Amino acid sequence: MRQQDERESDMTVELICVGTELLLGSIVNTNAAYLAEKCADLGLSCYFQTVVGDNEERLSLTLSQAVKRSDIVILCGGLGPTEDDLTKETAARVCGVELELSQSVKESIRAYFEKRGMDAAENNWKQAMIPRGAQIMVNHNGTAPGIIMETGGCLLILLPGPPNELIPMFEESAAPYLRKLTPEVIFSRTVKIGGGCESKVEMLVKDMIDRQSNPTIATYAKTGEVHIRVTAKASGLREGKKLVKPVVKELKKRFGDAVYSSGEDCTLEDAVVNLLHAKKLTAACAESCTGGMLSARLVSVPGVSEVYRAGFVTYSNKAKKKLLNVKSETLKKHGAVSRKTAREMALGAAAVSGADVTAAITGIAGPGGGTEKKPVGLVYIACSVRGKVTVKKFFFNGNRQKIREAACTSALLLMRNCILHFG
Amino acid sequence: MRQQDERESDMTVELICVGTELLLGSIVNTNAAYLAEKCADLGLSCYFQTVVGDNEERLSLTLSQAVKRSDIVILCGGLGPTEDDLTKETAARVCGVELELSQSVKESIRAYFEKRGMDAAENNWKQAMIPRGAQIMVNHNGTAPGIIMETGGCLLILLPGPPNELIPMFEESAAPYLRKLTPEVIFSRTVKIGGGCESKVEMLVKDMIDRQSNPTIATYAKTGEVHIRVTAKASGLREGKKLVKPVVKELKKRFGDAVYSSGEDCTLEDAVVNLLHAKKLTAACAESCTGGMLSARLVSVPGVSEVYRAGFVTYSNKAKKKLLNVKSETLKKHGAVSRKTAREMALGAAAVSGADVTAAITGIAGPGGGTEKKPVGLVYIACSVRGKVTVKKFFFNGNRQKIREAACTSALLLMRNCILHFG
Repeated sequence: MRQQDERESDMTVELICVGTELLLGSIVNTNAAYLAEKCADLGLSCYFQTVVGDNEERLSLTLSQAVKRSDIVILCGGLGPTEDDLTKETAARVCGVELELSQSVKESIRAYFEKRGMDAAENNWKQAMIPRGAQIMVNHNGTAPGIIMETGGCLLILLPGPPNELIPMFEESAAPYLRKLTPEVIFSRTVKIGGGCESKVEMLVKDMIDRQSNPTIATYAKTGEVHIRVTAKASGLREGKKLVKPVVKELKKRFGDAVYSSGEDCTLEDAVVNLLHAKKLTAACAESCTGGMLSARLVSVPGVSEVYRAGFVTYSNKAKKKLLNVKSETLKKHGAVSRKTAREMALGAAAVSGADVTAAITGIAGPGGGTEKKPVGLVYIACSVRGKVTVKKFFFNGNRQKIREAACTSALLLMRNCILHFG
Repeated sequence: MRQQDERESDMTVELICVGTELLLGSIVNTNAAYLAEKCADLGLSCYFQTVVGDNEERLSLTLSQAVKRSDIVILCGGLGPTEDDLTKETAARVCGVELELSQSVKESIRAYFEKRGMDAAENNWKQAMIPRGAQIMVNHNGTAPGIIMETGGCLLILLPGPPNELIPMFEESAAPYLRKLTPEVIFSRTVKIGGGCESKVEMLVKDMIDRQSNPTIATYAKTGEVHIRVTAKASGLREGKKLVKPVVKELKKRFGDAVYSSGEDCTLEDAVVNLLHAKKLTAACAESCTGGMLSARLVSVPGVSEVYRAGFVTYSNKAKKKLLNVKSETLKKHGAVSRKTAREMALGAAAVSGADVTAAITGIAGPGGGTEKKPVGLVYIACSVRGKVTVKKFFFNGNRQKIREAACTSALLLMRNCILHFG
């Protein structure tokens, strides 16, 4: 929020995404996220994003409001050849300018189809009609040209909806144009804290948040972790880094070992894999209720092969015994979801795979299988480092999926901790 | 478009997603897509979606406009414990009601932390403040309660931002509430088609789409599959079913075996697990580049234990040899990413686990490791049913994550196919 307020003085941009598929939820609005991030990087402040259908009345209402309150309005979608597509027509009307045929656009449309051995359909020529005085952005991946136009001090940028047309056009034409308008650069770093809860973390940095102006500090809650984003505005990259550095340093001082990423953005699984590389240790996993999710997260890291030995999904007791040599009496006496079983799974995975570090997860993810003594959400996680085993007991809330995700995150945090304090 | 026009007369809903992360493009707005799709299913017409930051002035501007023009406004995000979170406070102000402490919510927040062996932070109690007269929706997956309130004939529904809190709450509380408001019942069935491409599927049903009025037909592209939703509006459930039935029947006729779900909604992994149950077969997986994702998807199905034997994550050649008895000369001669290795992985998994059906995945997920002959995206998938092995070669596009997801979906489709045609 403050991050926003900091920018009150800046140039503001507003996004309007046009498309019935978005209103129906047929597709996710990735264009908005892409454009928002790019605009933030350009130092533009985005306060509003709107999605509206291919409907002239509602689009014109939305656009008229946007041009009044923002310096720049980026519209995407509705530039196609069909009758439904009326973003350009509506924008021209709101700006009070006529559409006129652009020979150069007509030519490039003809060329586009020629290149593909096709003839342009009649309605494609509609796409060659351009608002008078507008600037054209070439579309190398489709027939809809991009358009830059001005109205009463507000800049309008019209982009095609398909990401494979929008993204190249933005990078090639729109971004350079916008960069000229904004002198400042934005530099940000995210400090990632494992095992925290947002409200607690926020209280620990409240004084910093209250003091903040540039850089700004914002906290983001994730499953089992909290991210703190430090964002500075500066005249250049070097100055931006210089502004962010001391704040990141202070955060690392306050949260110590709990900080697993503070430089180049890295995920929790990246951090664990990097730590394995650094300490020249190998790892393996044994999973029951998570069924391979923990392995999958580790293997999502490129170059994991040198440090990752193997993963075992032992959902049934039979598999626990056969693949990991968990003792029958352990399962009988303590049950599959127990401190002792988790311990034997971790040690078994180490023995079979020969890995230095092994993590084992056994728990009740639900919806069924819970009892008074062992409710849904109860999970035991063991981590063994060269035979030294740590076992932790957790209660996670939520549905089967949420419990399994939380268990994997906690397992990665436990692995990281055990490796950090090893030797 | 058509679907929209059908509904011009209906009850309208407007979505407002609150969060600086969305304005900065730090996250993609999947909540909007989810809610839009659900609202469409409920027969509500959504004409506007807005994203605004945690800023009181702009949020109250947006909300005041929304309550004037829409029958229902769904707000998500900004219900957290931190100072930034002010959706509830702003909504109360716009509706002109006070916030008052809810003992029941306070109790459930205390219980939430107690269960996790933590103490609630001071600012968590802020979440127990509820607008006077509002209805509370219980949050089983977090501390922020959902809220339903009325103002001047407009209904406000406040949901927490994290999808793993928003989705269960919407299904459990908001959807049933909204269903009561719409006189017509909306009955829809989704026909899920494995391995199709959207444009092809659309061509095969174009005549049906052109003829549609009630029920309506909409296609949704997913990774490696296409979903066709058939939605009918009727005065009662029975009539709705009667309208939908023949259309679903026709779609099943046109797509045959490729249809894996057409009744009660079921996922691809559900379909495979159900098929295993039905044919009394057991399964196991051997994964290289997917690193456990395939196992994790199967284990995500409750009650999988009776049919799921074990999973092996053999990312390194060593593990492939040690755990699955893949021959050294096979790896030397054909490489880890080869038809032969996939085959031996599947047979190895069968031998070790004793499972009837085994799937094996080996491929190059990138970003590194690609060559002229074996580019990034090349994946071999093998499925063995009682020793009868089928191996398929795939080329997938996208980044490491996309390639791995596509490989898992294709493996599930192959498993389904092999089981269907077994015996």
